[in-house]
Amino acid sequence: MKQLKKYIDANRQRFVDELIEYLRFPSVSAQSAHKKDIADCARWLAGHAKSLGLRSRVHRTGGHPIVTAETPRRRNSAKPHFLVYGHYDVQPPEPLELWDSPPFEPTLRGRSLFARGASDNKGQHFAHLKAVEAYLKTGTELPCDLTFVVEGEEEVGGEALVEFLKQNKRELQCDGVVVSDTGMPDLKHPALTYALRGVAALEVKLTGPDRDLHSGIYGGSVENPAMALSKMLGRMINKNGSINVPGFYDDVIKLTAYERRQLARVPYSEAKYKKLLGVKALFGEKGFTPNEQRAARPTFEINGLTSGYQGEGSKTIVPSAASAKITMRLVPDQKPQKILRLVAKQLKALCPPTMRIEVDLGHAADPYIVSPTGPLAKAALKSLEASFGHEPVLLREGGSIPIVEHFSRILKVDTYLLGLALPDDNLHSPNEKMDLEVFTRGIWMSANLWTNLAEA
Amino acid sequence: MKQLKKYIDANRQRFVDELIEYLRFPSVSAQSAHKKDIADCARWLAGHAKSLGLRSRVHRTGGHPIVTAETPRRRNSAKPHFLVYGHYDVQPPEPLELWDSPPFEPTLRGRSLFARGASDNKGQHFAHLKAVEAYLKTGTELPCDLTFVVEGEEEVGGEALVEFLKQNKRELQCDGVVVSDTGMPDLKHPALTYALRGVAALEVKLTGPDRDLHSGIYGGSVENPAMALSKMLGRMINKNGSINVPGFYDDVIKLTAYERRQLARVPYSEAKYKKLLGVKALFGEKGFTPNEQRAARPTFEINGLTSGYQGEGSKTIVPSAASAKITMRLVPDQKPQKILRLVAKQLKALCPPTMRIEVDLGHAADPYIVSPTGPLAKAALKSLEASFGHEPVLLREGGSIPIVEHFSRILKVDTYLLGLALPDDNLHSPNEKMDLEVFTRGIWMSANLWTNLAEA
Repeated sequence: MKQLKKYIDANRQRFVDELIEYLRFPSVSAQSAHKKDIADCARWLAGHAKSLGLRSRVHRTGGHPIVTAETPRRRNSAKPHFLVYGHYDVQPPEPLELWDSPPFEPTLRGRSLFARGASDNKGQHFAHLKAVEAYLKTGTELPCDLTFVVEGEEEVGGEALVEFLKQNKRELQCDGVVVSDTGMPDLKHPALTYALRGVAALEVKLTGPDRDLHSGIYGGSVENPAMALSKMLGRMINKNGSINVPGFYDDVIKLTAYERRQLARVPYSEAKYKKLLGVKALFGEKGFTPNEQRAARPTFEINGLTSGYQGEGSKTIVPSAASAKITMRLVPDQKPQKILRLVAKQLKALCPPTMRIEVDLGHAADPYIVSPTGPLAKAALKSLEASFGHEPVLLREGGSIPIVEHFSRILKVDTYLLGLALPDDNLHSPNEKMDLEVFTRGIWMSANLWTNLAEA
Repeated sequence: MKQLKKYIDANRQRFVDELIEYLRFPSVSAQSAHKKDIADCARWLAGHAKSLGLRSRVHRTGGHPIVTAETPRRRNSAKPHFLVYGHYDVQPPEPLELWDSPPFEPTLRGRSLFARGASDNKGQHFAHLKAVEAYLKTGTELPCDLTFVVEGEEEVGGEALVEFLKQNKRELQCDGVVVSDTGMPDLKHPALTYALRGVAALEVKLTGPDRDLHSGIYGGSVENPAMALSKMLGRMINKNGSINVPGFYDDVIKLTAYERRQLARVPYSEAKYKKLLGVKALFGEKGFTPNEQRAARPTFEINGLTSGYQGEGSKTIVPSAASAKITMRLVPDQKPQKILRLVAKQLKALCPPTMRIEVDLGHAADPYIVSPTGPLAKAALKSLEASFGHEPVLLREGGSIPIVEHFSRILKVDTYLLGLALPDDNLHSPNEKMDLEVFTRGIWMSANLWTNLAEA
């Protein structure tokens, strides 16, 4: 490992120069004008990996190409096999006038390299590639086989990767997936994200009268659907912030004392958090901290309300109908289909006899968790600590990350999320940057990771 | 009175022919293409009144003209003076394809005369004019002085009448206004409408976070404005259907036993009413009948709900804000401004500390009531009974009628609403009609009315 460290330190500047080269490609997947840039970027990456000694390929897909790069390996290698996932496509850079330097002319200011895609995600997966380079160029035997899978449609939710995983299931069979595409609180808090919330969507509609009624002529003798819906929805959340649906929490795995201690280590300031969200006061399920509430507890969220007249001024009607769009965030081991069934049942139970009710079930995604005390997770934590010099924190992510679900469903394998983005990296915003201290430590973390994972 | 009755019976057919002539004018106030038809119609009416011996005038206004016609009177007449209000403008006839006969070619089928404006309102005020004709042509002394005020902007809510009343306040000073522009349940239930509900409007908006938030990243730690609004609104109506605002009912004049008995005489079938509104079940304030709930009790109605995403599919956000448009129907002696103040106060009291609240007060109109046991009301009831041969019912109207408010505010005078429209007269709809039995009985009722009112 000493040799590796020496190599990484010695080549630090060149690594940054190469990253700058990589960042010059305006690989904006959402804009068809950049189709050629996308293809050029994929070819450059494959070529670069090949120059390091990896067996790389650019795979054509129905959309943008996928780049794979495999470390050299023996036939029937007995080494563990890991996938490293990343994406070379980037968000559109607009509005351009808000950038302090052009988004595709990477610019160094202080410790930060500014460019679209710097942190999301080129800089993050490039760090892993540079760690592999260190092994290969120093003649250090890689204790595991690695396959990089770098796609070009992450920012547009493309289907190419799903198809690719299905078609190459056998070749991609592995012991785990490593993804650096999430965040870390700061340099003193490197992070392993070990759980994601799932989601389940539905829409509920109440219909009272078969048309909008004159509120003067009929108002008072007929129930108002907007009022009936308000009463129903209001009863879905208890005073203590919990969700009033029988059976809703039955499958929730309790947070362990260890997890709660770890989540409590994540830096948090209520004042800053309130300011960030622009709220007067916070509110969440009683008995849980905000960090737990927003990542480790399920939610029942009204995303939209619609009823009656919404234009200027007023219209004196009893509206015919009222509806709400609802999504629930779910935590392990809640099952979206079961939750949808329970919530629909409760909505129907709360519906007054004056109303016809329709409940339309929508999209759903399973929650995800990998044990933070399993051997591979421990190996990841060890690598983070070795590289950043601080005990890592364990994070849970409140949203879903579709690729994690894909790897789990198609390859039946766990994903380890070792995010290298800082909160102020401006992902998806103007002046996106990569902190080069994080970048270098990330390379060193990755070098440690392959050894630690192989030993786990 | 016998002579009058004889004259009316003898001239029945001619009265209908004249009404047909009046109905041929497509006096559609909403459509500028009919500006000339409106003017022609006004001139015809003034000419017709003059031919009967009234002193008639067509008054130019900022909009469509107003026709007045005064019965011949002595200077410094000591007779009581009543106004008869009507409007010669009509609703647009569209959609034309739904009419069984052209809207401006009055067509007799059975006892019904079909034409736009037949019942709303030409037929109704024309009946009063024909009653006056009977007095004048039979040489019977009219026991009161009458001024017809027939406007051309009722269907477009024009301001011409308000201006006219203000400018001619002195000449229009009177002992009461008679308006036939409401309804009666059927021929066995002639009706006096003696009370109207008022209205008060407001809009309430809750703001939580200062922008829509990602429901995955933040959901659970911040209160959802759509949920907060639902909870608040849900608490505004009690389980028994009453309104949960301290002081809301303080000024409500209790229904007398006589009023409740009278309202109970109005024909009503729950099955038919439910079918009419297209509702599964009725709901209203406990302890009151549907007829009372929709006309004699105040309401709190949500007219519109707005929050977050309302497009196709779903959007996983915690919306920044949620708002509701609300109107209250008020009954005598509630004061709109006081009610608005009380409701705004209650909304603010129910608002959780997580939300910023804005309450915007909107338009308001006073409720209206004239004692159904006063001498003029009794005279009106007596006239209805004499003409229709059945004890009249007392009605309250759930909506407001702006002209009643204008007469009350500007002329400081009560209005007696003696509606001659049947429920199936298709007001504002295709195949509008006037029942000619009602028309003839209406003329006879009016003839009785002037005598009875003068004696009261």
